Amino acid sequence: MRPSGRTAQQIRPVSITRNYTRHAEGSVLIEFGDTKVLCNASVQEGVPRFLKGKGQGWVTAEYGMLPRATHTRSDREAARGKQGGRTMEIQRLIARSLRAMVDLGALGENTITVDCDVIQADGGTRTASITGACVALVDAISYMRKKGLVKVNPLKGMVAAISVGIYKGEAVADLDYPEDSAAETDMNVVMTDTGKIIEIQGTAEAEPFSFEEMNSMVELAKHAIRELNDIQKEALIA
Amino acid sequence: MRPSGRTAQQIRPVSITRNYTRHAEGSVLIEFGDTKVLCNASVQEGVPRFLKGKGQGWVTAEYGMLPRATHTRSDREAARGKQGGRTMEIQRLIARSLRAMVDLGALGENTITVDCDVIQADGGTRTASITGACVALVDAISYMRKKGLVKVNPLKGMVAAISVGIYKGEAVADLDYPEDSAAETDMNVVMTDTGKIIEIQGTAEAEPFSFEEMNSMVELAKHAIRELNDIQKEALIA
Amino acid sequence: MRPSGRTAQQIRPVSITRNYTRHAEGSVLIEFGDTKVLCNASVQEGVPRFLKGKGQGWVTAEYGMLPRATHTRSDREAARGKQGGRTMEIQRLIARSLRAMVDLGALGENTITVDCDVIQADGGTRTASITGACVALVDAISYMRKKGLVKVNPLKGMVAAISVGIYKGEAVADLDYPEDSAAETDMNVVMTDTGKIIEIQGTAEAEPFSFEEMNSMVELAKHAIRELNDIQKEALIA
Amino acid sequence: MRPSGRTAQQIRPVSITRNYTRHAEGSVLIEFGDTKVLCNASVQEGVPRFLKGKGQGWVTAEYGMLPRATHTRSDREAARGKQGGRTMEIQRLIARSLRAMVDLGALGENTITVDCDVIQADGGTRTASITGACVALVDAISYMRKKGLVKVNPLKGMVAAISVGIYKGEAVADLDYPEDSAAETDMNVVMTDTGKIIEIQGTAEAEPFSFEEMNSMVELAKHAIRELNDIQKEALIA
Amino acid sequence: MRPSGRTAQQIRPVSITRNYTRHAEGSVLIEFGDTKVLCNASVQEGVPRFLKGKGQGWVTAEYGMLPRATHTRSDREAARGKQGGRTMEIQRLIARSLRAMVDLGALGENTITVDCDVIQADGGTRTASITGACVALVDAISYMRKKGLVKVNPLKGMVAAISVGIYKGEAVADLDYPEDSAAETDMNVVMTDTGKIIEIQGTAEAEPFSFEEMNSMVELAKHAIRELNDIQKEALIA
Amino acid sequence: MRPSGRTAQQIRPVSITRNYTRHAEGSVLIEFGDTKVLCNASVQEGVPRFLKGKGQGWVTAEYGMLPRATHTRSDREAARGKQGGRTMEIQRLIARSLRAMVDLGALGENTITVDCDVIQADGGTRTASITGACVALVDAISYMRKKGLVKVNPLKGMVAAISVGIYKGEAVADLDYPEDSAAETDMNVVMTDTGKIIEIQGTAEAEPFSFEEMNSMVELAKHAIRELNDIQKEALIA
Repeated sequence: MRPSGRTAQQIRPVSITRNYTRHAEGSVLIEFGDTKVLCNASVQEGVPRFLKGKGQGWVTAEYGMLPRATHTRSDREAARGKQGGRTMEIQRLIARSLRAMVDLGALGENTITVDCDVIQADGGTRTASITGACVALVDAISYMRKKGLVKVNPLKGMVAAISVGIYKGEAVADLDYPEDSAAETDMNVVMTDTGKIIEIQGTAEAEPFSFEEMNSMVELAKHAIRELNDIQKEALIA
Repeated sequence: MRPSGRTAQQIRPVSITRNYTRHAEGSVLIEFGDTKVLCNASVQEGVPRFLKGKGQGWVTAEYGMLPRATHTRSDREAARGKQGGRTMEIQRLIARSLRAMVDLGALGENTITVDCDVIQADGGTRTASITGACVALVDAISYMRKKGLVKVNPLKGMVAAISVGIYKGEAVADLDYPEDSAAETDMNVVMTDTGKIIEIQGTAEAEPFSFEEMNSMVELAKHAIRELNDIQKEALIA
Repeated sequence: MRPSGRTAQQIRPVSITRNYTRHAEGSVLIEFGDTKVLCNASVQEGVPRFLKGKGQGWVTAEYGMLPRATHTRSDREAARGKQGGRTMEIQRLIARSLRAMVDLGALGENTITVDCDVIQADGGTRTASITGACVALVDAISYMRKKGLVKVNPLKGMVAAISVGIYKGEAVADLDYPEDSAAETDMNVVMTDTGKIIEIQGTAEAEPFSFEEMNSMVELAKHAIRELNDIQKEALIA
Repeated sequence: MRPSGRTAQQIRPVSITRNYTRHAEGSVLIEFGDTKVLCNASVQEGVPRFLKGKGQGWVTAEYGMLPRATHTRSDREAARGKQGGRTMEIQRLIARSLRAMVDLGALGENTITVDCDVIQADGGTRTASITGACVALVDAISYMRKKGLVKVNPLKGMVAAISVGIYKGEAVADLDYPEDSAAETDMNVVMTDTGKIIEIQGTAEAEPFSFEEMNSMVELAKHAIRELNDIQKEALIA
Repeated sequence: MRPSGRTAQQIRPVSITRNYTRHAEGSVLIEFGDTKVLCNASVQEGVPRFLKGKGQGWVTAEYGMLPRATHTRSDREAARGKQGGRTMEIQRLIARSLRAMVDLGALGENTITVDCDVIQADGGTRTASITGACVALVDAISYMRKKGLVKVNPLKGMVAAISVGIYKGEAVADLDYPEDSAAETDMNVVMTDTGKIIEIQGTAEAEPFSFEEMNSMVELAKHAIRELNDIQKEALIA
Repeated sequence: MRPSGRTAQQIRPVSITRNYTRHAEGSVLIEFGDTKVLCNASVQEGVPRFLKGKGQGWVTAEYGMLPRATHTRSDREAARGKQGGRTMEIQRLIARSLRAMVDLGALGENTITVDCDVIQADGGTRTASITGACVALVDAISYMRKKGLVKVNPLKGMVAAISVGIYKGEAVADLDYPEDSAAETDMNVVMTDTGKIIEIQGTAEAEPFSFEEMNSMVELAKHAIRELNDIQKEALIA
């Protein structure tokens, strides 16, 4: 029934390439099918002004879409002179999700910024970003530990994210663009590798949804995220 | 246990004042306890460029906080030259919620903009905004019907919203500022008056939350929103 | 002759509500008839960069209009990304007027910012703002004295403001919107409670005006401001 | 008593050079002593959006200060990304003053923009701008008449402006920078060549001023503007 | 002598991957050693306002650098709210170079925008951008011809670009980052495949350079660009 | 053949007026025929953030065009809210050229900013700017030496600039506007007074150019710049 021929619970092939670029302390290209996001984690000394002198660190994220990552070219935000609402919403979501992974006190007065830049979009760019950014962040923290920039391990755990939705009346996992643009409901779920929820954001695109529908979407998300956790861990071992 | 002495499921006193200002087609002051938001719905001919010629209307929202609505003064966004990420996130949420109420085709090539301006903040400004904006939108649509600007009723139903959270380990409804700033988890739920979900956004502020916690929060939200629906309807009859 | 039926020298009913919101050190809702402005005075430690280390304080003001304070909705300045020329002109006028009330040396290195936000506009928003902001500023200074933030009283006196104009050939006081939009000449006068002038700004909207016309407008302004001074003082006693 | 040795009513030497640059339809360099402003009037077909189809024209003005027109370098507004409040206030004043000279209906759907750029500042840049812009505007209208762009003469009269102030307790005309920065009160007056007032803006810089002081300032302004009118007319004849 | 061990005239390994992303009409990843730029050409109907109704097309370019394309993270231009001077300079250079390839009249009222986004930087990002953008533009024009969007071939020829410089007193071709940051002089040359010059930009970074040095740099550039032309053509045949 | 009747190598009459305005430490009006640029050099204590504590100074430049310096009025960049790409490109070129004149170490922690504002444009505004800015910078450094702000002379030499181009198939020097807008190729050359190159920027406006054409343009530039050096030196002696 799904345009891609996938089963309801089937996610797209996921590929994680570490050390994708040379300069970043953590650099991951993540692919959810045709969605490709480059996640670069940068370690910088110091913290934003509102944290100065508090003896803790900070983790933040920025998100961008290359102008022709999409079917039709969208304006370059740098040229337009501001980031749109969608961009800000997504980068705030990524940042909150990543902060849930880290003991900011153990990080010391350092900042890790994860840039998620979408090279090619086919639905699910925010969930791919979070899943890839997690791996880049793990690599950046490893780098800090090797360099002695942190004394105790600030890593509390890992996160991954998936989109689920109601498409033609049925709950499906990991919507691609054709599904996403036709879905009645779209939900993004971010979870830890211990099976707890970090963020859940469900939006009725066309029709309000019932609690039963919510529950079946959540169920799919749980399984998909467990799969993503495994893929992340394999990538980190490799 | 709650700083306000309320029970877990008890929402704050809600007050809805219609026709609060003179010029807007719908003008509502809504109060959730000490949180006060002015919701003005403006009817304008025409639609944004991306909808021109499609024979349908548009519903949108803007959100702002007066600089001293909060404990300490925050910068005026107009003076800083841009709306922050939080503002954009909230006004997009309000707008999506309101669009779920309206048959945009029946609206004709007209736009309704609902401005939600927070006069005083004590937690829950986005949920108060949605609940009040709904009433202002109903009034604006009544105005359009009286003036003959629409032929069939574009109103599909009503929406209301509540925040729920985990505070000191227990699920509570309608968090005020002291609770909100100490909560482990914060969830905003937007529902129709037919008991369906429009938006659900849960964020682990301090600790990831379990599915059981989510379910108990959702349960509280359902009841609170039903109460809000009644208050909205009473206000509209008055 | 006047649309409102008032006599030439008659100002609209003025109402001043102190402690209108909860957080600000001075919070006043002022109404000049249907014009309603919320004036919040915020006390903050420190001074702007250009005053650092000079051992004096600062008083400033910001002005805004809710998008639907007016007959037709105007763009939100925060969304447009800048404050318009009219806004800047008005907030500079309010700030200069308020600084005339205060001994900045006695204020210490503290800043008081008065936010004047127009809830509903019917002409005279800048004069209502100044008159209300004066009361909010007095309250904020009282707060500082109670808290021991200042040693000597920095308050030098009070200010109030009124608009006067030539409407259908006759000088009138406190123009409302229908008069304002039809007036040949519009003049705003800010005075101290000792009968001296702080600011006078007269503009020929349609026709240049004579010195005789100016004098008759000034005469009306003097009386109106004396009345406003009384109303301010009563409000402060209450 | 005055730093310059001038008498109280004595204005600085005024010089008006027409056709100062080559491209503008009206181009005037005006000098009030060491204050030098280049006023270029540009004629353009069409009107701003809010006037389209109303069969009338528009006159507007923009003001700028070269970064090193002043004692110490000020930031370039183009580089900072916005015009400051003072700039906006001044250009709005110039524009209103110039519109008082012109029958906008007779102008047809044409726009005249007068750019006033301060080459060197020594006090009185806004009054020099208005006085010079008036001459540039007259030249631009002559150009339009020669080219047949207008059928009837849209020029209703001329305007000039002067600053007056209270300096060391005495009313003086045409303040230069040393006086301006020390003045208790500063007033700018714009008048027609028929002796009527277009704008009057008085500001108590240090001390509130009395009606007697205002009247003595206004008296000086009248005489000074009459002098300026003569100088403008001589320049236009030459 | 060169850090990379290359001879003076030796350019880095160049790799051109066509159809790198899925949506763009021309999509090329170009690598000059460790410098990697994604060049996406987008075909859009219509032309910018200044060309409307002139019966010709337009070719333009935008350039961006991912924040962590460089050794240390640089600010995201979209977040800072404007493109820097270096970015603007480079994108104007790319656009002028590409327009030299195209008969804009034959293009019809269509616009081709080539986005050059630097994935990883190691010197020479602007020359890699031009060389890769040329191939993407050729592909976009092929697409237009296949779709019948143009009647005659608008392609006039091809362009490529190389940087040359004086490094430790000797002229070298295709500077990588360690050379670039230490070079006395840096020159970028853009040429056609017929051996003519489109752009030449030489800058004395540390010391002014002589005409002899210029000539030896130009000589290297000629040979390098001829090599690049061959690589481009091979890529297009493949 | 040239519209102005000049020979191919003949530059326009050049005039350099020092001390053109009163406040700047170096103030030069330079005229290349009808092109007139005011170059003001400002000395300021301190350096930009990226140089703090490095014990060296900085030289920078800003460029602007008065809105009606050109045939038709162009938008004021301050009003539009940003500097265009052309402006940024030019001011970066001027700044690099001026820095080649100065030993930044000898300058101490001081900044010299040279503002180049085009009063009237007739082609060659960037080359006139550089040539005039050089003289203003020499004057500013003389001022610093007299005031004891520098211990050793930071001046390393002088620079001047000229445009050359291919007009109707022939190389010509110092293009005025009619030539510039019709030229096939346009090249700007900046050189020291010792005959070395600082910058060379050649652009094929219409047709790619050959190395022979480049060489003939460069030859013309050499002679023209030698002439400009003489004129600069005469002006500095006067």
